[in-house]
Amino acid sequence: MEKSQNIFDNQVFFESYVKLRQSANYNQLLEQPAMEALIPNIQGLSVLDIGCGWGDNCRAFANAGARRVLGIDISERMLSLAEAENSLPNIEYRLLDMSSLDEIREAFDFVYSSLAFHYVSDFPKLMENISSIMPVGGTLLFSQEHPVVTATSGLQGRFLYNENGKPWAYAFSDYFKSGLRTSRWFVDGVEDHHRTMGEIVTAVARAGFKIDVLSEPCPTPEAIRRLPALEKELIKPAFLIIRAVKI
Amino acid sequence: MEKSQNIFDNQVFFESYVKLRQSANYNQLLEQPAMEALIPNIQGLSVLDIGCGWGDNCRAFANAGARRVLGIDISERMLSLAEAENSLPNIEYRLLDMSSLDEIREAFDFVYSSLAFHYVSDFPKLMENISSIMPVGGTLLFSQEHPVVTATSGLQGRFLYNENGKPWAYAFSDYFKSGLRTSRWFVDGVEDHHRTMGEIVTAVARAGFKIDVLSEPCPTPEAIRRLPALEKELIKPAFLIIRAVKI
Repeated sequence: MEKSQNIFDNQVFFESYVKLRQSANYNQLLEQPAMEALIPNIQGLSVLDIGCGWGDNCRAFANAGARRVLGIDISERMLSLAEAENSLPNIEYRLLDMSSLDEIREAFDFVYSSLAFHYVSDFPKLMENISSIMPVGGTLLFSQEHPVVTATSGLQGRFLYNENGKPWAYAFSDYFKSGLRTSRWFVDGVEDHHRTMGEIVTAVARAGFKIDVLSEPCPTPEAIRRLPALEKELIKPAFLIIRAVKI
Repeated sequence: MEKSQNIFDNQVFFESYVKLRQSANYNQLLEQPAMEALIPNIQGLSVLDIGCGWGDNCRAFANAGARRVLGIDISERMLSLAEAENSLPNIEYRLLDMSSLDEIREAFDFVYSSLAFHYVSDFPKLMENISSIMPVGGTLLFSQEHPVVTATSGLQGRFLYNENGKPWAYAFSDYFKSGLRTSRWFVDGVEDHHRTMGEIVTAVARAGFKIDVLSEPCPTPEAIRRLPALEKELIKPAFLIIRAVKI
C-alpha cells in the first residue's frame, strides 16, 4: 500500500499541533467524549492503537485493565513524547505506518484509532488488514473527519455567515470525487483522503465486520461554554465514529 | 406509532407527482438504478414493498420470480393505479400505513422500500417492526432522502451558484436538530422527518441487522445527458440506500 504522509515530523506542524492539543479543542470536547463512551470492557484484552500519537489513550487502555497495549504511529517525534510521558510496562510503542499493518504478526481483541484513518490512501485494504489481525468477536472503534468535511477540493468547505456574523449553514462540494485533498493546516501540503460515507461503511462491512454504532458527535452546551467556536458544529457533522464487531 | 402524513391523496399533489414520475426524473435516473443493482435473487421468496405506490416494483418482483408480493401504501389513489396497471395473481395490494406494520402477521424474506422511510416519525420502531416479520438471513433494502438533504429546517438546503450560473457547492444546516421538516413540494405542508446518518445506521444495527452495503448513488454521464439538472448532484449526495441482512 502507498505510504501515508508523515506531516507530524514537520517541526512547524508538530509544534503547532502540540500547542493546539494543549488548549480547549475539538478533539478533547467533541470527538474524545464520544469515543470514550463507546470503548468496550477491555479488562485482560490486547489492544492496538493505530496512530497513537503521544500515547495518552494507550495509557488509558492500560489503566483500564488491558493486558497488553501496542501503540503505532508514523511520527518519531510523537513516539518520543509517548515514551517520555506515557510509558507503562505493558505498553509498547512502535514506529509503523498504518499502511504497513501486514507487518504485525499478533492478534488484537480491540483495535482503536482516533482521527488517523483520513490519512490513509487505501481504506478497504486497511480494513482488511485490521480484520486479519482480530479474532471473531473483537471490536474495532475508529474516528475520522466526517465525509462532508473532507469532501471539498482543497478542503475549502466553509461555514456561511449572515450579516450579523452568525453562521447559518455549511457549504461543501465535490462529494463524489473521492481521493487526495491537499490543504494548509499549520503548514502547506497536508494530505487527507476523502471517501464517501458509502465507501467507508461498505468497506468496513466487506472486511467482515458487523457495524454496531455509527456516531456523529454533537457538541454539548457545556462543551460550547468552554469553546464557543463549537456552537457552529450544531450545523453540520464534524467527525464520523464507527464501532464494529468482527464476525 | 404516530400515523404518517397522507399527502399522496391530496389531488394537486397526486397529479403533480404522477406527472413528475412520467418524465425523466431523479428516481428513474439516480435512485432506481442503484436500488436495482442491490436487489438479491428473490426466486421463490416472499416480498414486502413498503410504500409501493402504483406497484411498478411489485410487478418487477413478481416477474423476477417472487412467490408472493405484498405491496402496502397509505394512499388509496396510488393503490387504485396499482390495481389497474400492475395486477398479477401473486401480488396483493393493501392500504396500510408503514407505522402500522405490527398488523402484519406473516413473514417476508425480502423487504423493500423506495423513498418512503423519510415520511415515518419513529424510525427505530419501524426497523424493529420490519425485523420482527423477517427470518434470519432475510434482506432489507431501502432508500430515502439523504440526511444532508433533509437536515435544513423548512428543507431550505440549497445549491450555491457562481456568477456564471454554475453550481459550486451545497449549503445545509440544522443537521443535529432531528425531527419534522415541513416544506412545499407541489403543495404546502409536506412532512419529512430528518434523522442523522448516525441515527439511521445505528437504528438498523440495533434492530438486528448486519449492514451489508451503504450506497449514495452518483449520477452517471448518461443520466446527466438525459437530465442535465442531475449534473449538480455530483456536488452532494441526494439519496441514502442501505442493504442489510437479518442476523
